[in-house]
Amino acid sequence: MLKLYYAPNTCALASHVALEQAGADYEIVRVDFAANEQRGAEYLGINPKGRVPALVTDRGILTETPAILAFVAQSFPDARLAPLEDAFAFAHVQSFNSYLCSTVHVAHAHRMRGYRWADDAAAIEAMRRKVPQSVGECFDLIERELFAGPWVMGGVYSICDPYLFTLAQWLEADGVDVAGLPRVADHRRRMAELPAVRKALAEEARASPGG
Amino acid sequence: MLKLYYAPNTCALASHVALEQAGADYEIVRVDFAANEQRGAEYLGINPKGRVPALVTDRGILTETPAILAFVAQSFPDARLAPLEDAFAFAHVQSFNSYLCSTVHVAHAHRMRGYRWADDAAAIEAMRRKVPQSVGECFDLIERELFAGPWVMGGVYSICDPYLFTLAQWLEADGVDVAGLPRVADHRRRMAELPAVRKALAEEARASPGG
Repeated sequence: MLKLYYAPNTCALASHVALEQAGADYEIVRVDFAANEQRGAEYLGINPKGRVPALVTDRGILTETPAILAFVAQSFPDARLAPLEDAFAFAHVQSFNSYLCSTVHVAHAHRMRGYRWADDAAAIEAMRRKVPQSVGECFDLIERELFAGPWVMGGVYSICDPYLFTLAQWLEADGVDVAGLPRVADHRRRMAELPAVRKALAEEARASPGG
Repeated sequence: MLKLYYAPNTCALASHVALEQAGADYEIVRVDFAANEQRGAEYLGINPKGRVPALVTDRGILTETPAILAFVAQSFPDARLAPLEDAFAFAHVQSFNSYLCSTVHVAHAHRMRGYRWADDAAAIEAMRRKVPQSVGECFDLIERELFAGPWVMGGVYSICDPYLFTLAQWLEADGVDVAGLPRVADHRRRMAELPAVRKALAEEARASPGG
């Protein structure tokens, strides 16, 4: 059985939704960020980066959302979560997810995790101030250029969709005006109604630390 | 023919080396960062993100290094640049490359591109000061945990190797003491001797803007 280590309101939601949509046999294990469990020896033995998600498989442990999402798509091909037979289309999916990981999520992280990149409080506050602009510019690019519609890649749903949905959860808290992003907002509404998304969100809200 | 847009001393080198090792029919096109060409209308028509690399294929344009590297590996399977038949091993490759893209490269970028995440000069300077530590911690993790040796994934060369080599080019300028990274340093030395790497570096040094 696959085991997904997650914390609520993190990017682990994308992998959780994909596992659910894949029909995988999996369980979720909550990492208690409030207790700094992600920095404890036990969790560092699972993921030495001290972050979520981490996916435990019978072959070993995988980290990094784009890698986990592609792994789920390839491991459960019947779920048709990525264009596995077409190297260009698959690369297009991966390009979108890599942008979310390396640019969009990183811009967002400067609101809560500025200490990763500077030590002094004024600098961390300066980073926080720019988040509405930097995250906003990323989502403008998605809205205008990258989002094909009705799903991220066009007519066919893919592992890009739960990942975009996950990062779009944070728009209001990041200070981005969602009114300027009608296609992203519509996608978020439709995603929130999918049974797999409803189930994943309910499970993450319900699960308590350690169980 | 594939066409790779690049600039010298950027992460585009990883894709360049992979194309060379794949035996691809490709050409490279230099984007003149000194003239801010990456922000000009012509290049934004190729990559609206205003960054390199961008790979022009007969199906469309791909961006993001991890996506391009996997695309090259899948498009030229005879070059055996990734474990394409093994979803877990492929995910392991992708996990490493995603970490380079979203964490290592991002830590490095705070030395030269702090303006992406804050506006005031003192904050940008504070980011710059932390780069030796933040990049150093990433490479410590690679040295201790992620690098199997003699290649990144162990006995078999993969698309992780040119990407690690590319980011390891910047260690000294980032203020990281390479003496503390003997395995990464040894990998860098061996990579630098590969014919494909020598050819790619020579081409990037030689090519002039526009030609």
